Amino acid sequence: MTQPAECPEFVEIAKRVNNWGRWGADDEAGTLNLVTDHTVRAAVATVRTGRTIALALPLQQDGVQTGMIPGRVNPLRTMVALNLEMFGPGTVATSDDVVTMGLQAGTHWDGLAHVSHSGKLYNGRPADTVTAHAGAAFAGIQKGRPLVTRGILLDVARARGEERLAGGHVVTPEDLAAAEEFAGSRVAPGDAVLIRTGQLRHYLQGDKNAYAFPSPGLSLRTPEWFHARDVAAVANDTLTFEVFPPEIENLWMPVHALHLVEMGMRQGQNWNLEELSEACAGEGRHTFLLTAQPEPFTGGTGAPVAPVAVL
Amino acid sequence: MTQPAECPEFVEIAKRVNNWGRWGADDEAGTLNLVTDHTVRAAVATVRTGRTIALALPLQQDGVQTGMIPGRVNPLRTMVALNLEMFGPGTVATSDDVVTMGLQAGTHWDGLAHVSHSGKLYNGRPADTVTAHAGAAFAGIQKGRPLVTRGILLDVARARGEERLAGGHVVTPEDLAAAEEFAGSRVAPGDAVLIRTGQLRHYLQGDKNAYAFPSPGLSLRTPEWFHARDVAAVANDTLTFEVFPPEIENLWMPVHALHLVEMGMRQGQNWNLEELSEACAGEGRHTFLLTAQPEPFTGGTGAPVAPVAVL
Amino acid sequence: MTQPAECPEFVEIAKRVNNWGRWGADDEAGTLNLVTDHTVRAAVATVRTGRTIALALPLQQDGVQTGMIPGRVNPLRTMVALNLEMFGPGTVATSDDVVTMGLQAGTHWDGLAHVSHSGKLYNGRPADTVTAHAGAAFAGIQKGRPLVTRGILLDVARARGEERLAGGHVVTPEDLAAAEEFAGSRVAPGDAVLIRTGQLRHYLQGDKNAYAFPSPGLSLRTPEWFHARDVAAVANDTLTFEVFPPEIENLWMPVHALHLVEMGMRQGQNWNLEELSEACAGEGRHTFLLTAQPEPFTGGTGAPVAPVAVL
Amino acid sequence: MTQPAECPEFVEIAKRVNNWGRWGADDEAGTLNLVTDHTVRAAVATVRTGRTIALALPLQQDGVQTGMIPGRVNPLRTMVALNLEMFGPGTVATSDDVVTMGLQAGTHWDGLAHVSHSGKLYNGRPADTVTAHAGAAFAGIQKGRPLVTRGILLDVARARGEERLAGGHVVTPEDLAAAEEFAGSRVAPGDAVLIRTGQLRHYLQGDKNAYAFPSPGLSLRTPEWFHARDVAAVANDTLTFEVFPPEIENLWMPVHALHLVEMGMRQGQNWNLEELSEACAGEGRHTFLLTAQPEPFTGGTGAPVAPVAVL
Repeated sequence: MTQPAECPEFVEIAKRVNNWGRWGADDEAGTLNLVTDHTVRAAVATVRTGRTIALALPLQQDGVQTGMIPGRVNPLRTMVALNLEMFGPGTVATSDDVVTMGLQAGTHWDGLAHVSHSGKLYNGRPADTVTAHAGAAFAGIQKGRPLVTRGILLDVARARGEERLAGGHVVTPEDLAAAEEFAGSRVAPGDAVLIRTGQLRHYLQGDKNAYAFPSPGLSLRTPEWFHARDVAAVANDTLTFEVFPPEIENLWMPVHALHLVEMGMRQGQNWNLEELSEACAGEGRHTFLLTAQPEPFTGGTGAPVAPVAVL
Repeated sequence: MTQPAECPEFVEIAKRVNNWGRWGADDEAGTLNLVTDHTVRAAVATVRTGRTIALALPLQQDGVQTGMIPGRVNPLRTMVALNLEMFGPGTVATSDDVVTMGLQAGTHWDGLAHVSHSGKLYNGRPADTVTAHAGAAFAGIQKGRPLVTRGILLDVARARGEERLAGGHVVTPEDLAAAEEFAGSRVAPGDAVLIRTGQLRHYLQGDKNAYAFPSPGLSLRTPEWFHARDVAAVANDTLTFEVFPPEIENLWMPVHALHLVEMGMRQGQNWNLEELSEACAGEGRHTFLLTAQPEPFTGGTGAPVAPVAVL
Repeated sequence: MTQPAECPEFVEIAKRVNNWGRWGADDEAGTLNLVTDHTVRAAVATVRTGRTIALALPLQQDGVQTGMIPGRVNPLRTMVALNLEMFGPGTVATSDDVVTMGLQAGTHWDGLAHVSHSGKLYNGRPADTVTAHAGAAFAGIQKGRPLVTRGILLDVARARGEERLAGGHVVTPEDLAAAEEFAGSRVAPGDAVLIRTGQLRHYLQGDKNAYAFPSPGLSLRTPEWFHARDVAAVANDTLTFEVFPPEIENLWMPVHALHLVEMGMRQGQNWNLEELSEACAGEGRHTFLLTAQPEPFTGGTGAPVAPVAVL
Repeated sequence: MTQPAECPEFVEIAKRVNNWGRWGADDEAGTLNLVTDHTVRAAVATVRTGRTIALALPLQQDGVQTGMIPGRVNPLRTMVALNLEMFGPGTVATSDDVVTMGLQAGTHWDGLAHVSHSGKLYNGRPADTVTAHAGAAFAGIQKGRPLVTRGILLDVARARGEERLAGGHVVTPEDLAAAEEFAGSRVAPGDAVLIRTGQLRHYLQGDKNAYAFPSPGLSLRTPEWFHARDVAAVANDTLTFEVFPPEIENLWMPVHALHLVEMGMRQGQNWNLEELSEACAGEGRHTFLLTAQPEPFTGGTGAPVAPVAVL
């Protein structure tokens, strides 16, 4: 394997996109700082029809996880009460559920503490500030302002005239630029960028293994593209987020390291962008109000989210 | 105990607020049908400053549950990977969490199948369509359009000049009308109504038991008030939602039965309305865009939600 | 499918093996009543060398479950504390784990309430005495005397000179008689009978799917054989316990129904009998002291067990 | 707080009881090595009546944990199938449960990797061999021979003529010697010693808080007593095992550190010794066959156990 610190290309990019100290030495929110009240007003201003589109996959035992990632279990929802007449026969009855699930199992945000490299988290904090007992004591998923901002769909698959990018397709800055062109809008500071590869169609068609691997995904050259535009967050419709297997042999998860550790930027995975893609193409516009506040697990290194695009 | 079917007052109200068949015999969404694209546009039009306020409590072991409700366990978030260098020493490392929690344990929506009475769920379906195996086969929390609509805060505590309503205070239609007057806006069809009692301050100040019981909460006369205004959903800042102990001796959870079963209207509990209350009072307006899409658990009788008010 | 009540062969056998009322109308222990202090002394008297052999599979994420049985999840053990210095830096540190698992996921006993047929549990109790809230209110796995008794290995595979019975091999009373002959001991009242098919070798060799299905297993004619000998409990080394697919087309799980419901006899599954088989063959004797007390989950319909044979 | 390495008394005792290297540098079983086939035969020879007594508490939501120990949650058993007719209406129906629980929540063994001090586990291994991902890679609870051996009850409470030792009572070597005298048998190499304080009566009488704290328990001088006698394992009827608060101010959990780290000896907690106490006193003998094999969780730092004493 290749260690990121020993890969010159990674090291160079890391320097250029690094945000440590940018919002203070104690900042735990990273690029979420780029969302302001002004951004939200701009986001609201994009709404025209009021149509709302949910972007989360159903949370269920038959979810996207295949067992490839150890411990990241699909949601198991069980009943602890079933029409229980707690106050006596014939009284009002309640049903209650309990769930066990990986916080990163379904449609989720990776929080900044989800990844470390070279012993460091975002803002230079030691990796071991994440503990079994407290989770992410620094930069837990519950930190920072609510994630409501302008969303922009970069529909790479559709822009290329493909239903679904090939497994292993490297989504490059050039792909992003072409999709931006196709979108007819410019990515702006504070935006959440949703990148569609079409890969999720594998899962929707019942083939989890094809969905998991090999996967199209982001190139390690894209973080600079996002950095240049001061993007607040990026999400896509894959399990791995970045291209899998990786572009540089044995350099695993460089995009995770650049986004989460160097930039302090949340990443979204397993987002369902299919209906949104149809809607944006139909209306000929690709910006909208995006509400995507993660469940605020104290110390979470990530969290499920039920995002909604408001068009 | 008193069975709802044998309580004349309950039976009379139930008849008046009943929505069975209103959106078709197969409808599983209930009053969520009252939210339309038009409603969303009206909601968006309320936004002025772009300030966003998160309304969810942190999800953590030290949550609001006290053990009073059997099986409804506070979130236990644990680590399954901690800076795990999955691809070899020195490579990018990941941390992953798993959670076990009651779906109704923290800030949540009760789904329509959470409650039955007299053997029936919303729209007259048999209560036993909820099963251990599948959960709510009918009217699961994942059904219906995304919950994004106009929110209106009825700040009953502040309107009465109280920091917090007394435990056992019955929130009446008259209280709601006074709070609406105080809000300076009218409740409109498709609105989500957030009712503040101040009861959550007990929990925020570290006293869970006082938070749980006795609790101020809604009167069984309020469902008619909501029904008359065609409200889409109602949430408040209590554990029990309705007044506890109940108004009519031994008639337990009548408001749950009227909202969920008769009207098909979601209820929200354990919402943190403190910051919102300050903001609305400060700005002198009480309407906003509310995004409150529940986590889409297939068959869930309820679900956690991370609501955000956009002012 | 075929309903047991409509299958004459099943109905006839059920009548002959039925133990309802045998130990009183309120009995919740079933054939465990056949174990007495005398039985235990006889079991102890079989011990010669003091060699102990553990019969449980490791409890781990990579367990025997394949997802075929909905909700029966393999054990997920995670850390909630990792060398946590709870009392300050440098003090004694503790590590703590939490597990989520199906009670019937690994090496386990099926309790009497695990199965119902025709609306009834053991001793004629209504099936609906099992609830989401309380589990098995009647005949939960925690009931009855500790399961320590004489064990006898019926090594059907070895007696037939096979390493492993073929998938779908029906273990008949004749097979049992031949294995008893091979064992050189008679099955006695109060015994726990361990039946080895060799099927577990599939799992031990890494092929879970082959282990699950098709499986050799007990014939619906064997319950009479056990009944005639007043056996206390039966366990084997398969996932399905009985032959799968079933002998009578579409008559699913008749042996479960006969053992658990009609006889009130616990069944063990996923027991690792490989080392025991070697030991018994090596020593030329097949009886031993068996300690196999299930974890006493209140209301459990089954439970994990860590059985040990003492030779 | 006091660090063990800086407390001369602790350091001296640690030297005297240390077993590192005694069974080889790679040994993961510790004092379990003291149990031999010979020990088991001796244990079996103690059996006279065949009476069996279960020593585990019921596993249930209303267990002994009070929330004092973060993350160590009481068992939550829920249903994933409830009389589910998997193969069609009228077919044999199954009920299945799932549990979430702390491995150290109920009646359990602490495994050797449950505790570290001064950065070390048993046999000098680094504490960080315990990981979130794999649990205890070294000396997990699944290691070593089955725990079946001779048990001896040292009924300290009864020997002192007390129903229950006072909270904070320090169980000294002198207490143990007196209880041994009372027992009328000598502790022998390979024995599992069960020490009764009567503290569990608080829990059995419904007072969990009194059970938890303050607690009678073992003195840090007792490990030498066990070491001198080559005891295999020690269990008692308290939550904290050792006296709480501790004997030496701010020296927390020294007995844990001595037993688990220095000696490599398992500890049992929350064992129900009440019925056993009555039986031993009634029969005038205090030795028996003890079967106490933990559930074999791979990498577990501890595990639930369902011990049985055979008299």
